[in-house]
Amino acid sequence: MEQRRVDLNCDLGESFGAYTIGLDSQVMPHITSANIACGWHGGDPLVMERTVRLAKESGVAVGAHPGYPDLMGFGRRSMSLTPDEARTYVKYQVGALWAFARSAGVSIQHVKLHGALYNQAAADPALARSVCRGIQEVDSSLIVLTLAGSCMLKTAREMGLRTASEVFADRAYQADGSLVSRRLEGAVIQDEEAAVQRAVRMVTEGRVTAITGEDISICADSICVHGDNAKALALVRAIRAALEERQVEVTCLEELV
Amino acid sequence: MEQRRVDLNCDLGESFGAYTIGLDSQVMPHITSANIACGWHGGDPLVMERTVRLAKESGVAVGAHPGYPDLMGFGRRSMSLTPDEARTYVKYQVGALWAFARSAGVSIQHVKLHGALYNQAAADPALARSVCRGIQEVDSSLIVLTLAGSCMLKTAREMGLRTASEVFADRAYQADGSLVSRRLEGAVIQDEEAAVQRAVRMVTEGRVTAITGEDISICADSICVHGDNAKALALVRAIRAALEERQVEVTCLEELV
Amino acid sequence: MEQRRVDLNCDLGESFGAYTIGLDSQVMPHITSANIACGWHGGDPLVMERTVRLAKESGVAVGAHPGYPDLMGFGRRSMSLTPDEARTYVKYQVGALWAFARSAGVSIQHVKLHGALYNQAAADPALARSVCRGIQEVDSSLIVLTLAGSCMLKTAREMGLRTASEVFADRAYQADGSLVSRRLEGAVIQDEEAAVQRAVRMVTEGRVTAITGEDISICADSICVHGDNAKALALVRAIRAALEERQVEVTCLEELV
Amino acid sequence: MEQRRVDLNCDLGESFGAYTIGLDSQVMPHITSANIACGWHGGDPLVMERTVRLAKESGVAVGAHPGYPDLMGFGRRSMSLTPDEARTYVKYQVGALWAFARSAGVSIQHVKLHGALYNQAAADPALARSVCRGIQEVDSSLIVLTLAGSCMLKTAREMGLRTASEVFADRAYQADGSLVSRRLEGAVIQDEEAAVQRAVRMVTEGRVTAITGEDISICADSICVHGDNAKALALVRAIRAALEERQVEVTCLEELV
Repeated sequence: MEQRRVDLNCDLGESFGAYTIGLDSQVMPHITSANIACGWHGGDPLVMERTVRLAKESGVAVGAHPGYPDLMGFGRRSMSLTPDEARTYVKYQVGALWAFARSAGVSIQHVKLHGALYNQAAADPALARSVCRGIQEVDSSLIVLTLAGSCMLKTAREMGLRTASEVFADRAYQADGSLVSRRLEGAVIQDEEAAVQRAVRMVTEGRVTAITGEDISICADSICVHGDNAKALALVRAIRAALEERQVEVTCLEELV
Repeated sequence: MEQRRVDLNCDLGESFGAYTIGLDSQVMPHITSANIACGWHGGDPLVMERTVRLAKESGVAVGAHPGYPDLMGFGRRSMSLTPDEARTYVKYQVGALWAFARSAGVSIQHVKLHGALYNQAAADPALARSVCRGIQEVDSSLIVLTLAGSCMLKTAREMGLRTASEVFADRAYQADGSLVSRRLEGAVIQDEEAAVQRAVRMVTEGRVTAITGEDISICADSICVHGDNAKALALVRAIRAALEERQVEVTCLEELV
Repeated sequence: MEQRRVDLNCDLGESFGAYTIGLDSQVMPHITSANIACGWHGGDPLVMERTVRLAKESGVAVGAHPGYPDLMGFGRRSMSLTPDEARTYVKYQVGALWAFARSAGVSIQHVKLHGALYNQAAADPALARSVCRGIQEVDSSLIVLTLAGSCMLKTAREMGLRTASEVFADRAYQADGSLVSRRLEGAVIQDEEAAVQRAVRMVTEGRVTAITGEDISICADSICVHGDNAKALALVRAIRAALEERQVEVTCLEELV
Repeated sequence: MEQRRVDLNCDLGESFGAYTIGLDSQVMPHITSANIACGWHGGDPLVMERTVRLAKESGVAVGAHPGYPDLMGFGRRSMSLTPDEARTYVKYQVGALWAFARSAGVSIQHVKLHGALYNQAAADPALARSVCRGIQEVDSSLIVLTLAGSCMLKTAREMGLRTASEVFADRAYQADGSLVSRRLEGAVIQDEEAAVQRAVRMVTEGRVTAITGEDISICADSICVHGDNAKALALVRAIRAALEERQVEVTCLEELV
């Protein structure tokens, strides 16, 4: 039987001071979960408050999007933290977002790591454990939204956290379910229609064709979308329309997991 | 009739990364309320967690100690923020501390501003209002701990926040109840015995002798003490001993206001 | 006799990490002096190198554009620095830019302060002196580019530094030659043609009509232009065209002062 | 024939704002080359200026000590920079120090990388090349001071830069000449007398006993010493005294390479 529900998540609130990044207000109406930057790799208190309010107005669930303390590198550069650093850095950022969620009268639904922290925790069990402990210590009911099939997902589950598995419409997969590195050719699906069809199939059939040609299983609780530019926005709209056409209900993680 | 209860508060958790400042573990046993830096003018997530735990172990109430985003100046330099910046900067920092308080199983009792933000809000009604709104939006039950007789105190009260009025044992006062600027001679009471006696009298009689010689009224819910060095520690111990000798109960703000 | 030469300066290189601000490559061909951010209020090492190279390719003179250590506020918020802080902060930033100028085989022509530091030094003699001392200590041949008639200009001159006086095409002036605050109505000249005519007249006649209606003297070694958006770019082009039509040579400060 | 000259270098100027670290003024008289932090992993403009002046007064040669943009981690955490980031980050920091050296009337003698950047460049040829290019682009006469036998040393030499090879009195070596990781037992020589004797022998004989018992060759242009605490200071004095007793001249790198 086909899956009938999926979440659409997007990284938002990454503007900082005088610097604007992302078409937040344009993409917000199309998604169901917002990953909101917490001031370390991007975002500042004004932006966080505005983004939480915007999410609330759009009926979009709020999530924390913690990253490395590396604004200059936008959190995209690997760093070697100790377990206690990783754990407390996540707590700090989730707490900071909590202040804005609480005053807006909404709860934090989930935590999704950003950039290099996301990538490293997806592959490194010790880091994944540290980060999950941080999340758990702040609020054990938070949903961990992370890469389908990743070490982070397994770790969060083993630790008793609620989890949600995300997929990428426009990224190629290896046969083992991991993402093809952006440095390799074919890593990004350029064709919008192809990306839409992959997204729909991952949700409704739980399957995707790997870059090596095999058909593999994949769990799609949520589809990660982007709001960086007009092309990205068009893809979001196309994915959502295609899902709804197939009677897939697009709804936030809280309803799904 | 004499007042029989007072709080002792101290700024703590201001170390950062490899940098250590303050004799936190030595001063903690002698105080009842800890103002914990939130990572902007000082403090980092590891330090915040450690300081919250240390406070809990010592039965000391936890407070947020937000400051300007100016680590290089330790939050001691005036800045001109917009009302929304001031309001959201305080929310962010209180939220960050909340994560550590919550995971340690304690509540945040109070908020005390740091450095230049403390001084500016003590005199500027618009800034005081912005900051108080930020505190209120996060948690309207938080106690605002601030300078006796200040604009910040009045504003917090008018806005319906709980307040606590703090005094300084080793600082001279003007006849209007304001502090003598550190830039002026006689601003700091160097003699330990004199400082102790002033503290005791402010608590038990609600009076202090101003630098101009007049005797003035002052409200002492809390005495601000320091843990920077051996001399400061000695003063804390002497103040506490003198208060207890006079049967003044030293207890946290939650019990007092 | 009419003045026959003027410089056009613009703030550039203010992008930071993943954040882009300003249409640097589009405005560069139209100006003669570039004020390059030095990594504190904006800019990072990659951006600084790229901007210096771009200036060199366009035959534009390079200047340092130091600001407050306040990336979150883009250097636009007043801060209270000690004289030694102000002096050494300017030295640090000029030195950082020097590395990129030197490796590109160009000299730093001038220093223009940024944002709140520019505004505060324009009015505060002590701050102006500190900043000028910093500039002088690094390289006493640097030209100080600053607000026509300002305290900063006078201070730099008195200290024996070379100076250049800048004017704004699209800003209203008070009768005393100071700028009308942006918070007041009429502060910004919205009409492009009016702005162009004011610029031409300030250069060729050394006069401008104040907001109060009086005609006042003003010294225009350089016109400050902007490259934030399409409208700003259009104004730059229009000013340059109008100047050249009047046989005013547009050339860098080194040729003028 | 015995070597008769060696440099003693120490990391200095790592204090930041209100935070003090290192006994700079106490260790300065005993060394010949100072590695001065440049504001990224530690140090600020006031500290940099003060440290350059202190070095000058003590006749100590000045070097730049650039690190990762990670004040919270004191530059001790690995980061994955692109080659252009590494190259320009080093340029920026060397340039910033240049401003203080120039105004003090001294030259920058050398560059020594800090912390994780030092360690990563010692082992990673691509990073070593990027960093050396950055140094070369700013000033090709700068001496690269780095780990004896390291990839960084070879790369700098191949690129035509002047180099100096440093050894550690109190660190154990592997048979291949690399340092034993601090995480392993025996990595640090605790006994002062043993450390002194190792330092003397590395300088005078060019040999040291590896942790595995073999006697290996090592090139000691400079000995790295520390000024963190009283014990470290005692070791510096003991090393210097032992060298001078053996008629080894202690002198800066400029005299040696």
